[in-house]
Amino acid sequence: MAGTNSERELIAEGPAIILVEPQLGENIGMVARAMANFGLGELRLVSPRDGWPSDKARAAASKADHVIDGAVVFATLEEAIADLHFVYATTARQRDNFKPVASPVTAASTLRSRFSAGQKTGILFGREKSGLKNEDVALADEIVTFPVNPAFASLNIAQAVLLMSYEWMKSGMDDVTATPFQEIDQLPATKDEVVGLFEHMEDALDSRGYFRPAHKKARMVDNLRAVLSKRGFSSQEIKVMRGVISSLDRFSRKNPRGSGAPLNEAGEGSDVDDGVES
Amino acid sequence: MAGTNSERELIAEGPAIILVEPQLGENIGMVARAMANFGLGELRLVSPRDGWPSDKARAAASKADHVIDGAVVFATLEEAIADLHFVYATTARQRDNFKPVASPVTAASTLRSRFSAGQKTGILFGREKSGLKNEDVALADEIVTFPVNPAFASLNIAQAVLLMSYEWMKSGMDDVTATPFQEIDQLPATKDEVVGLFEHMEDALDSRGYFRPAHKKARMVDNLRAVLSKRGFSSQEIKVMRGVISSLDRFSRKNPRGSGAPLNEAGEGSDVDDGVES
Repeated sequence: MAGTNSERELIAEGPAIILVEPQLGENIGMVARAMANFGLGELRLVSPRDGWPSDKARAAASKADHVIDGAVVFATLEEAIADLHFVYATTARQRDNFKPVASPVTAASTLRSRFSAGQKTGILFGREKSGLKNEDVALADEIVTFPVNPAFASLNIAQAVLLMSYEWMKSGMDDVTATPFQEIDQLPATKDEVVGLFEHMEDALDSRGYFRPAHKKARMVDNLRAVLSKRGFSSQEIKVMRGVISSLDRFSRKNPRGSGAPLNEAGEGSDVDDGVES
Repeated sequence: MAGTNSERELIAEGPAIILVEPQLGENIGMVARAMANFGLGELRLVSPRDGWPSDKARAAASKADHVIDGAVVFATLEEAIADLHFVYATTARQRDNFKPVASPVTAASTLRSRFSAGQKTGILFGREKSGLKNEDVALADEIVTFPVNPAFASLNIAQAVLLMSYEWMKSGMDDVTATPFQEIDQLPATKDEVVGLFEHMEDALDSRGYFRPAHKKARMVDNLRAVLSKRGFSSQEIKVMRGVISSLDRFSRKNPRGSGAPLNEAGEGSDVDDGVES
């Protein structure tokens, strides 16, 4: 599994994911995988249609075996949530009841606060075909719903679990713009290195008669330096660039393609000879 | 599809989703569905292993036909991104290159800014088994990676597309805590209605001798009112509660269960007669 570090401790805490009468084992497996991706571990199944355990669920879980092995089956939703202090119901539809409605961001923040206070929480997900019934929703404290495209609002159950798991993970981060790994650390080049690149490039071009007509040279150098400095090269990148210039400067094509002389910035052909060196 | 409003205009704009050598048609279909859920419409496929079009993809797309029908196949990644101005590569692994690394939140914000400025953008997703190769990543401007559980970091391709599509949708919202529908609007009860509930309840209890011993009555009333007011009833809810009290007050069980007299707040048995009325 790309990017997985199996020496890192598995995170598995936070709200229980409760699937109400799930139909397909494959979906239960995808749910388990999504939970594992974002550090949730507790899966509860209310009366799964095709029974439990399920080989299809295990296969689809892509090695999230700790979630599959820990899953607990209940006969009724009431039993499945009996020990919980606070429960969200996920739904894409306005319900004819008086529950508060939260976004995933708000719900994750609420779940995180309650988790920190030692409360046990859960999130209910409905049947693949028909979602949660009103009597299921009635057992929850609040509703959570997703900011979907109104013309295409039906989320797959594993996708819905993924989004809540992802927001749960983010709710525990000090900075949601943080990334698990960063750009390789490189110091910007010093000005001495940058000027070295300028001069190397300019010398290579000058020796080919690039800066023509002569009275435009100062302006052309300014423009070239603007292009080269805008990018913000690192020291390492300056080395790469100087290697490129050296190669272009010192060697000719072994197998010249085309016979046109190179064009300079002004689109005028160079009259420098391009003889093969080696 | 629960919650889908087919009279609403389909949203289909924003970055192109580019799958590099996807293997299973089912996954391409799940990608199309995830895109449609969050308003993306442009799918590009680089050399899909099992060919295109794909019946399996269409079936898995759950009616996201506009995405499937609009998908375009390219022979190479270079061709697939030729017209784009800015491209992210998704990866779960640190790469040995110098690309900036962004979180999904940051990447979505960047894509939204570039979209608003009229730029064409895209997001690359790798092969199911092996992800993006280094030479694929080299063609992108920046990397985006997900804040996953380090011990279980491998996201299914459709799940990765879903998260980016979801963050894209959120990046266009003024308030990420907004929800597509809200709690049914109800005014809080007026104090007159609340006091009416208090008095109704207290009268029903008093007539049963609930407030014993007499010198504790004032304190018991205070406690009861604290319980009833903490909840913040709406006018409608007050009506429901008063109906409940009336029913308990005026009628007895038609089929009495058990013979114990009811207990009051202090746990002392009431001596009120519980004769059947009807």
